[in-house]
Amino acid sequence: MDPGTGLPVVGMVGAGQLARMTHQAAIGLGQSLRVLAASPTDAAALVAADVVLGEHTSYEDLAGFAKGCDVVTFDHEHVPPEHLRRLAAAGHSVLPGPTALRHAQDKQVMRARLGELGLPVPRWTPVAAAADAERLAADTGWPVVVKAVRGGYDGRGVWLAYSAVDVDRLLAARIPLLAEERVPLRRELAALVARSPYGQGAAWPVVETVQRDGTCVEVLAPAPGLAGDTAERAAAIALTLARELDVVGLLAVELFERTDGALLVNELAMRPHSSGHWTIEGSRTSQFEQHLRAVLDYPLGATGLAAPAVAMATVLAVEAAPGAPGLDERVHHLFAADPAAKVHVYGKQTPSGDILGHVTVLGDDPGSIRQRARRAARYLSSGQP
Amino acid sequence: MDPGTGLPVVGMVGAGQLARMTHQAAIGLGQSLRVLAASPTDAAALVAADVVLGEHTSYEDLAGFAKGCDVVTFDHEHVPPEHLRRLAAAGHSVLPGPTALRHAQDKQVMRARLGELGLPVPRWTPVAAAADAERLAADTGWPVVVKAVRGGYDGRGVWLAYSAVDVDRLLAARIPLLAEERVPLRRELAALVARSPYGQGAAWPVVETVQRDGTCVEVLAPAPGLAGDTAERAAAIALTLARELDVVGLLAVELFERTDGALLVNELAMRPHSSGHWTIEGSRTSQFEQHLRAVLDYPLGATGLAAPAVAMATVLAVEAAPGAPGLDERVHHLFAADPAAKVHVYGKQTPSGDILGHVTVLGDDPGSIRQRARRAARYLSSGQP
Repeated sequence: MDPGTGLPVVGMVGAGQLARMTHQAAIGLGQSLRVLAASPTDAAALVAADVVLGEHTSYEDLAGFAKGCDVVTFDHEHVPPEHLRRLAAAGHSVLPGPTALRHAQDKQVMRARLGELGLPVPRWTPVAAAADAERLAADTGWPVVVKAVRGGYDGRGVWLAYSAVDVDRLLAARIPLLAEERVPLRRELAALVARSPYGQGAAWPVVETVQRDGTCVEVLAPAPGLAGDTAERAAAIALTLARELDVVGLLAVELFERTDGALLVNELAMRPHSSGHWTIEGSRTSQFEQHLRAVLDYPLGATGLAAPAVAMATVLAVEAAPGAPGLDERVHHLFAADPAAKVHVYGKQTPSGDILGHVTVLGDDPGSIRQRARRAARYLSSGQP
Repeated sequence: MDPGTGLPVVGMVGAGQLARMTHQAAIGLGQSLRVLAASPTDAAALVAADVVLGEHTSYEDLAGFAKGCDVVTFDHEHVPPEHLRRLAAAGHSVLPGPTALRHAQDKQVMRARLGELGLPVPRWTPVAAAADAERLAADTGWPVVVKAVRGGYDGRGVWLAYSAVDVDRLLAARIPLLAEERVPLRRELAALVARSPYGQGAAWPVVETVQRDGTCVEVLAPAPGLAGDTAERAAAIALTLARELDVVGLLAVELFERTDGALLVNELAMRPHSSGHWTIEGSRTSQFEQHLRAVLDYPLGATGLAAPAVAMATVLAVEAAPGAPGLDERVHHLFAADPAAKVHVYGKQTPSGDILGHVTVLGDDPGSIRQRARRAARYLSSGQP
């Protein structure tokens, strides 16, 4: 507890844009997020009052950071599991807990567990040798998708293999791999839910996500034209997983909608997630506020839509063309062109390809708000109409 | 400009709840508000990364603070006018400018100017001696309202005088006073607008405000049952004033709706204002984001309602009854009772009677959301249902 305010102190390991937006939500709840930042120029470190510099890979840094926090939570999955267990054993409230978080850190553990729970996943196999992938391909056909079991994110650690030769090349890096079928996709969906230690669960409407090179570039809420029973199934999968894995906080379940309408679980994240950025303006409770409510065991907030349709588009940093307007000028122009577009700039030093921010547009017609969000994000990216 | 982000640096003098909520909005725009705080426990200083400690009454502190800011703006009206003029003369961009701000600092200057502009104000007179008030009362009847010309806020500096004896007692404090008629009120309204240096103006729907002991305790947006032409007149008064006084940033115009339907201007504020807290969730653009957009000469944001009706209720700090739940527990209980109520706790050390936060509720029926907001604020105040 903060003795001045009588309100709890939440510490978030990692100080990227997710921590930055969680701090915005914490302010409303009377709190100030404590962040563990690798650098004072991390997105959240630029705007938060309570910044501790340190490495998420150092137990000493983590333990120092946790001191005085009522809860320790995360803006990424990269804290070593043994550190998480040690923090919990030392009496810190680590949420989501180490056992739950394991399923967002290790794709093999996750797929095995989902299989046990009878939840639908793509056909997959651990890959110790190329022959493992070949056996899968005999069933599914080439190419197969090869993934690093640990450490991948935003498309890093995912490859297509067209033959055993490709798999051998990937095995040369000597990191644990798995392979899975390449699912014939209608589209990707995401089901975002929250769960509190008390066991309360809350689900937002299921959304459609659009990925490019492994980065989520667009989200449409609710997923346009999604059959009611499919939406229910997606939400049920996410709520079941949250309960069975004992998740506390947010759980984002990335799903494949197969061409035949079946749903398959692709990936899990146990933190605020790009598929939920639309909730800041588009839902009565944002994912950032909800994550705080969940880890503090507050009753969860209402998850209804604030408009019939919401579109989010990611702003990617691109190499500026000669003579292109600077970011400040691009924001000016966008505000003139679309006074109702909501801009979120993350303030980061952004190398080309990194994520600079996002734009959200609310309205009645999914098609037109998607166009507006997409246009706005493209202009903020490049200064090119 | 912040060399790291390529985005401007706005400095706000004062670090109360208005600066705190402006920082929340600045984060979305890729910025980090710089605040001049009297104490590290000021509401905004608790949550902002860029805090300068100093006094708004010290020119040296102000000048040091302004260095490196693209714009200097304010969360209150208490900076001495001579300091504002000196800052502007030194080349700092001070917005609203000293001449405009004078009309929010000095009630006599404001009333005289509104008279010149032909805008409706209560009958009033400067009071150098009790006889001045007596002459007004001969016309309006006793009691009259006596106000400190400068320095009053939240009901401080306002008194009812029932006779010349009362006026003499007030004159004994030797501060400049004015007196005005006690207007027969239907209710109070507020018209909130923003204006940019370019001259763009934007008005939110006119709201009803409820005051208790000089503090705004409830706001209803839009003002229930307000005649269309009255709403238009109120917005026109505010936009006219913004233009004629050359306001840059927000202008809140507090209005009396007289029992006969006439509108009279009561007070002005040139900053985010309690009558606009509902805009955080209730409008497409919050007053805090709009103030930043205006002082940065960005095109202004859309001011439409996000729901048919919005109610805001102020959470006042009260002496806790023995055994009453603490603030954290009260937040728990409220979230259980009303999962869609939006809570804003300011994190301040709050002496009894001070403002602890506010609650906003959105919905279709003005009566029921008003009840919910009022109940929520009362419970957060006291822990008493």
